[in-house]
Amino acid sequence: MTDEFPGILNCPVPITNHQTVQLGHGSGGKMSRELLTKLFLPRFGNDALNELGDQARLEMNGAHIAFSTDSFVVDPLFFPGGNIGDLAVNGTVNDLAVGGAIPKYLSVGFIIEAGFPIEDLHRILLSMEAAAKQVGIPVVTGDTKVVEKGSADKMFINTTGIGLIPDDIRLTPKNIQSGDQVIVSGYIGDHGITILSSREGLALESDIRSDTAPLHGLVREMLVAVPDGIRVMRDPTRGGVATALNEFAEEAGNRIRIDSSALPLREEVQSACEILGIDPMYIANEGKLLAIVAPEQSDDLLEVMRKHEYGEHAAVIGEVLDGEDGRVSLTTGLGAETIMDMLPGEQLPRIC
Amino acid sequence: MTDEFPGILNCPVPITNHQTVQLGHGSGGKMSRELLTKLFLPRFGNDALNELGDQARLEMNGAHIAFSTDSFVVDPLFFPGGNIGDLAVNGTVNDLAVGGAIPKYLSVGFIIEAGFPIEDLHRILLSMEAAAKQVGIPVVTGDTKVVEKGSADKMFINTTGIGLIPDDIRLTPKNIQSGDQVIVSGYIGDHGITILSSREGLALESDIRSDTAPLHGLVREMLVAVPDGIRVMRDPTRGGVATALNEFAEEAGNRIRIDSSALPLREEVQSACEILGIDPMYIANEGKLLAIVAPEQSDDLLEVMRKHEYGEHAAVIGEVLDGEDGRVSLTTGLGAETIMDMLPGEQLPRIC
Repeated sequence: MTDEFPGILNCPVPITNHQTVQLGHGSGGKMSRELLTKLFLPRFGNDALNELGDQARLEMNGAHIAFSTDSFVVDPLFFPGGNIGDLAVNGTVNDLAVGGAIPKYLSVGFIIEAGFPIEDLHRILLSMEAAAKQVGIPVVTGDTKVVEKGSADKMFINTTGIGLIPDDIRLTPKNIQSGDQVIVSGYIGDHGITILSSREGLALESDIRSDTAPLHGLVREMLVAVPDGIRVMRDPTRGGVATALNEFAEEAGNRIRIDSSALPLREEVQSACEILGIDPMYIANEGKLLAIVAPEQSDDLLEVMRKHEYGEHAAVIGEVLDGEDGRVSLTTGLGAETIMDMLPGEQLPRIC
Repeated sequence: MTDEFPGILNCPVPITNHQTVQLGHGSGGKMSRELLTKLFLPRFGNDALNELGDQARLEMNGAHIAFSTDSFVVDPLFFPGGNIGDLAVNGTVNDLAVGGAIPKYLSVGFIIEAGFPIEDLHRILLSMEAAAKQVGIPVVTGDTKVVEKGSADKMFINTTGIGLIPDDIRLTPKNIQSGDQVIVSGYIGDHGITILSSREGLALESDIRSDTAPLHGLVREMLVAVPDGIRVMRDPTRGGVATALNEFAEEAGNRIRIDSSALPLREEVQSACEILGIDPMYIANEGKLLAIVAPEQSDDLLEVMRKHEYGEHAAVIGEVLDGEDGRVSLTTGLGAETIMDMLPGEQLPRIC
C-alpha cells in the first residue's frame, strides 16, 4: 500500500470538518473549497493550480495554452434543452473561453455502467458531435471504461480541453478595481431548475430548458469590442452566481455589491425557486458568464453582448466597491443590504 | 431531448453485436474496437483520432503537442505496489511517453462516492503527489465531483496529460518494416495478477506486486541511444501484450511472430496464470512498453534498456515478418505456430 513511496505515510491526515467525503464537497462552494485548500493544494500546489481559475494557463514553446478538465455526472442524463453529451462539450469549452482562450482540442473519457443502452450512448455521442461541430473543436483522443452494473450510475463523462490564449490577454481576478461593473450575460438559474424539475418529475407550468450553450463566440466578440476593459470572466456553474462572485471578491480583496432588482431572472424560474425554496443565486448555469468590466466600457460591452444569441439578456447587476472585506452583498428593493456567502454545502447534487 | 440539434435523431443507431454496453466494451480488446469503430469514430473521426494511438499528436503554434486521457476505475483502490493514485499518474505519463513525448502537464478529475474516507483520499493524493514529483510533471488543473452513496464504486480518477514531442520524433505503426524486432521492456502480467489476487483474496505463495511505474525516463534514454531505430512504442495495459501487438500488426499490415520461450515472465505469475486459467499475454501491465525496432539496432537498444531500472529485464520477443495478413502468431517450444488474436471480450474488468 503506497509502499512505493516510503515516508509519505508519515504525513498526517489534514483536519477537516468531516471524516468522509460529503455531497457538499462536490458543490463548488465552501465545502469544495475546504477540500481544495486542505487536501489538494498542499499536495499539488503550483503557480498554475494556485490561481484556482477554471483553467490553467501554461507556457509551451512560447505559446500561451489554456488547459481545463471537468467530469460530468448529471442526473438525469437527458433533460429539456440537452443531455450529458452536449453539456460535457460546452462545459469545458466555456471553462476555456472565459479565460480568454480559443478552444482548440478536446479529449473525452467515458465511464459507463454495464447494461447501458447502446441507443442512448449513440444519442449522447450525436449530441457531443453536434456540440463540438458548433464550436469547431475536434475530439482528438478518448477513453472508455465500463464498470459492473451497480458500480456507477449509468454514465459519467470527463472532457478535458486545450485552448490557445492570445498573447495580449490576461484575465484574472487580480485585475479587478474598485468602481468596476459586474455583468451577467443573461437569465440565471435555468439549468439548475431544469435538472431539478426533471429529476423530481415536477410539473412546472412552463417549459424551462437548460441554458447549455458554448460561450466561446460571445467571449471572442466581447474581447474584440473591449480589448482592455474586461478584467476577468467566469461561468457560474456549480455554486451559481453567488459562489463565482465570492471567488472574485475574495481574490480581489474588494466588496462586490449586487442589486437584486437588476438580476435577469425568468418569471418561471423565480416561481419555481419560490416553490422549491431555493435561491437562484446559488443555482448552476451552463451557458452564462459573469464579467467584471471597467465602468467606462460597460455600455459598449453590453451593446455587443446583446447582439449575440447567448448574450441577448445581458445586464449590469452590480459593482465593485472600495471596501476591502472580499465579500459579496445583495441589496434589495427596500435598500437593505445583506451578505451573500459562497454556497455553504450542497444544494443540488449532480447538477452537471 | 437533444432538441438543440434537430436532424440528429434521424441518424440510425449503428448495428452492434450487443444492444447494451458490456464489460467487454471496456476491455481494450476486440469489443472496445467495435464500439470505437461503429460508434465513436463515425461521430468524432479526424486525423488525430483516427490514428488510434494512446495519445493524439497536435500542432499548436508550431509545437508538436501530445494529448492523452485515461479514466481509472481499478478495483481494489489499494493493492501491492501502488494504488489508484500513482496508477492514474503513471498511466497517462506512459501514454504520452510511448508516443515519444516529454510529459509536461497533468489534469486530474475525481469522481468520489459520498462516504469515502478522507483518510483514504489523503493517502491517494500523497501517492499522486509522489508519482507526479518522480516524473516532474505538475498537476495544473483539476475537478472533483461527488455522487450519492451507491452511484459510484468508491472513486474513479481521470488524468489527462499534455506532452511536448521533439520535432524529429514521429513514432507510428506506419513505420514498421518486415525484419523489425519486437522488444518488451520486462516481465509481463505483474499488474493484472496483482489486482486479480488482491480482489479475490487469493493467497498466492509469493508477493507479486503491480509494476506501475513511469516510463518517460526509459523512453528518453532509448530515443537518445537509437534515435532512428525505434519505429513505434506502446504500453500494453488493458488487453495486454497480445492486443497491443495486434494493433501494430493490423496497422502495419504485417505478420508479427512472437517466440513464447522468449517472453519475460516471472515464475509466480506463470503459476498464478495456470491456477487461474488466464493467459499472461492478455493481462494488463502498468510499467512496461513494447517497441518495434530496426534489427541492426536492437542489441544497442537492449543494452541501454537493461541499464535502466524499468528496463532491466528487456528482451527481444519476436519479429515482424514479410507476410501481409496483419496478424500476430505465437511459436511454442515444439515449433507449432498459433494465431494470437486481440482480447476477444473481457478477461479482468476494472484492472486499471
